[in-house]
Amino acid sequence: MQIVEAKANGQSRVDITSYAELYKNELLHNVLPFWEKHSRDEVNGGFFTCLNREGKVYDTDKFMWLQGRQVWCFSYMYHNIEWRKEWMDMALLGAGFMEKHGRDENGNWYFSTTAEGKPLIQPYNIFSDCFAAMGFAALDKILPTDRYKEIAVNTFENILRRQNNWKGKYNKSFEGTRSLKSFSLPMILCNLSIELEHLLGTQRVNSFIPTVIHEVMDVFYQQDHGLILENVYADGSFCNSFEGRLLNPGHAIEAMWFIMDLGKRLNDQALIQKACDIMLHTLEHGWDKTFGGIFYFMDVLNNPPLQLEWDQKLWWVHVEALVALAKGYALTGDDRCLRWFEKVHDYSWKHFRDEAYGEWFGYLDRRGDVLLNAKGGKWKGCFHIPRALYQVWKTFENID
Amino acid sequence: MQIVEAKANGQSRVDITSYAELYKNELLHNVLPFWEKHSRDEVNGGFFTCLNREGKVYDTDKFMWLQGRQVWCFSYMYHNIEWRKEWMDMALLGAGFMEKHGRDENGNWYFSTTAEGKPLIQPYNIFSDCFAAMGFAALDKILPTDRYKEIAVNTFENILRRQNNWKGKYNKSFEGTRSLKSFSLPMILCNLSIELEHLLGTQRVNSFIPTVIHEVMDVFYQQDHGLILENVYADGSFCNSFEGRLLNPGHAIEAMWFIMDLGKRLNDQALIQKACDIMLHTLEHGWDKTFGGIFYFMDVLNNPPLQLEWDQKLWWVHVEALVALAKGYALTGDDRCLRWFEKVHDYSWKHFRDEAYGEWFGYLDRRGDVLLNAKGGKWKGCFHIPRALYQVWKTFENID
Repeated sequence: MQIVEAKANGQSRVDITSYAELYKNELLHNVLPFWEKHSRDEVNGGFFTCLNREGKVYDTDKFMWLQGRQVWCFSYMYHNIEWRKEWMDMALLGAGFMEKHGRDENGNWYFSTTAEGKPLIQPYNIFSDCFAAMGFAALDKILPTDRYKEIAVNTFENILRRQNNWKGKYNKSFEGTRSLKSFSLPMILCNLSIELEHLLGTQRVNSFIPTVIHEVMDVFYQQDHGLILENVYADGSFCNSFEGRLLNPGHAIEAMWFIMDLGKRLNDQALIQKACDIMLHTLEHGWDKTFGGIFYFMDVLNNPPLQLEWDQKLWWVHVEALVALAKGYALTGDDRCLRWFEKVHDYSWKHFRDEAYGEWFGYLDRRGDVLLNAKGGKWKGCFHIPRALYQVWKTFENID
Repeated sequence: MQIVEAKANGQSRVDITSYAELYKNELLHNVLPFWEKHSRDEVNGGFFTCLNREGKVYDTDKFMWLQGRQVWCFSYMYHNIEWRKEWMDMALLGAGFMEKHGRDENGNWYFSTTAEGKPLIQPYNIFSDCFAAMGFAALDKILPTDRYKEIAVNTFENILRRQNNWKGKYNKSFEGTRSLKSFSLPMILCNLSIELEHLLGTQRVNSFIPTVIHEVMDVFYQQDHGLILENVYADGSFCNSFEGRLLNPGHAIEAMWFIMDLGKRLNDQALIQKACDIMLHTLEHGWDKTFGGIFYFMDVLNNPPLQLEWDQKLWWVHVEALVALAKGYALTGDDRCLRWFEKVHDYSWKHFRDEAYGEWFGYLDRRGDVLLNAKGGKWKGCFHIPRALYQVWKTFENID
C-alpha cells in the first residue's frame, strides 16, 4: 500500500509485484537449476562448489561450510516452496557425504576434505559446525530422522561448549594483551537456535535472543559514528587497532535484517525501526560514491585497511542488502528503503547476474567489472543468492 | 659496454650510468630519510611501520618481521655505503626493542607486539625469526658484540630445528592427506646462511647451497610451463589444487636473482643463464598486457585464483624484478634484460614512487592507481625498496 502512495507521489517507480515475480523466477529458473545441474558429485556424494562461469568443475575440494549451506538451501526450498523430489535428493546427496566424511573423532567438523572425503584442513573454524547444524536441522524438517536430529543437536551443543575458545590451539593471540570479541558468534548462535527451534524448543531459543540484541545494538553499535564495529574489547570499548577499526558494511547490514526479524518475533517496532535506521546509515556510509556498489571493508577512522580486497564488490554483501531493504520497507514503510532497494537492485542485476550461464558472479573489482570469472569457489556456494532471492520474493509478495 | 652496442644498434635507450645515479639518489634522498624521520619510536624504541602517505603514524603495533628487516637495512647501508652514525643509531633503536621484547621464553620471535612491547601475536611464523637473525647478524657486522652474535646464531639454529614443522600447533593441515612443500624456506635458509657467513663459516654456508639450487631449479621449476610453482607435493610432483596451481611471479623473479648471485659465487655461468631465462619468461607470463605491471598471483592452469588481490600491483614484486633484470643484464649481457628493465622501471617510477612525500606506495589496483594511500603497514616496511635501490645502483655502477 505504501507503494501506491509512493508512486502516486512520484517518489518511486518501484513496482513491488514485478520485483516479487522477478526474484521468484530468478531463483527457480536461473539459480537453483545451476547448482542442480553442475554441483553434484555423483561418485562420492557431496557438492562441488568450485564451478567456473559455465558451471564446469575447476577444483574438486569440498568445503564443509558450503556443503552444510547447500544442504540447508535445498531442504529449505523443499520445505518452503514446493515438495520437489529433486530438491530433497540434492539435500540428501550433501548430507550423506557430510555424515560419512565431515567430522573428526570429537564430532568437530573439518574445514575441508578431498572429493573422496579424506580430511584436508582440520576443524579450526567453528562456522563449519554452525552450517552443518543448520543443514541437518533443515533436512530433519523435511525428512524427520533421529540421526539427523542427533547430528544437528550434538553439533549445536558442541558449538556452545567451544564458543568461548573456539579457535582452540589455532588461536594466535597472546592471551591478555588485547582481548577482542566479534559479534559474529552471538549472531550466528541466535540464528542457529531459531533454525533448530523444532529440536531445541521455543523457551531455549528465546533465551538466546536478549543477549544478541544487547550485544549487537548496544555493544558493537557505536552511537558516535552510527556504525557497527566488527571487533571491540571484551568490555565493549573501542580498540584503536586494525581489528578494532574494521567495518564490514555487508556484515552489519545482514545483521540488521536478522535483528528486524527478531523485532518482528518480539513485536518490538522500536527495535525494528532502529535496525532499519542503522542499516540505511551503514549503506550510505559503505556505498562507493564514485563507482557504485558497497565496499567490502572500511576503517572507521579512514585509515588504510589491512584487507587488500577492501574496495571490491562482493555478491553476498549486495544481496544481503537487498533483503535488508525489502524487509525494512515491509516492516517500517520507510520510503528510503524502497529508493535504496532500487539502486542496489539495479547495480546488482547489472553487474553480478549472469544471464548467459545462470547463477551470479561473486567478485567484482571496484569499478564493477568481474574480478573472478567463476560462480563458486572456496567461499561462494549455493547459499546467499538463493536465500536472498527467496527472502525478497516472499517479503514483497506478502506486502499488499 | 653492451649498452654502447645496444644503443648503437638502436635497440635501447637505456643509459646505465644515469640509472645508477638515479637509484642512488632515490635511496639516499627520498627513501632512507623517510624512515629516519617518521618511523622512530623515541619512547619505547623500535619502529613504527604503519605510516600514511605523509609519514604520520596511523597504527602503533610492531611487527617483528619489519623490525628485523629495518635493523638489517640500516646496518647494511652503514656497512656498505657510508659509516653514518645516524644509520647505526637507527639499527640500534630497533635492535634494542627486539632484544627486550621480541622473543618468548623459548627464543621464538613473536609475530607482533604493542608499541610498548607487550606480545600480541604468538610466534606462529618462522619468517619473523629469519628476519631477526638477519637483522642481528648485520648489526654485528657494524658493531661486533657477543650478544648480537649469540642472538643471530641461536635464532638461526632454532630455525633449523623448527624447519620441518615450523607451523607447529598452528598447522591446520590434516597430516598425510596432501603434503605440500614450499620453496620459501630452503630459499630463505640459504640466504640467511650467507648473511650469517661471518658467524657460521664458509664451509657451513656452502653446505646449504646445493640443496636450494636443486630444489628451486629442478623441483619447483616446471619444465613444461617454464614457470616456478609455489607449492608441490613432497616428492616434487604437481598437485592440482589451489595451492598447487599457485604462481607468484614476484616471488619466482626474486628467487632468480638470488640464484644468479649463487651462480656468480660458484662461477657457474650456465646456472646464471638458466636463472636469467626463467626470470624473463616469468616476467613475460606475469606481465599484465592490458594495464601494465606484474600480477601478484596467478593460477598455472588459468583457473580463478583463491587470492582476491591477485590482479593488484605490489611494490616488492616490481622492485625485485628491477634487481633481477639489472643483475641479469650485468651477468649475461642479454639485451632483453635491458629492454624489460626500462619497461618495469617506467611503470614503477610512474606508479609507485611518491615525489611529494618520499618513499613509494605499496599497493596499486590493476590499473595502476593507488589502492592504499600509505607508505607502510603490517607487511610493508623499510626493506624491499631500499634494498632494491641499492642493488640496482651498485649493479649498474659496476658495469662498464
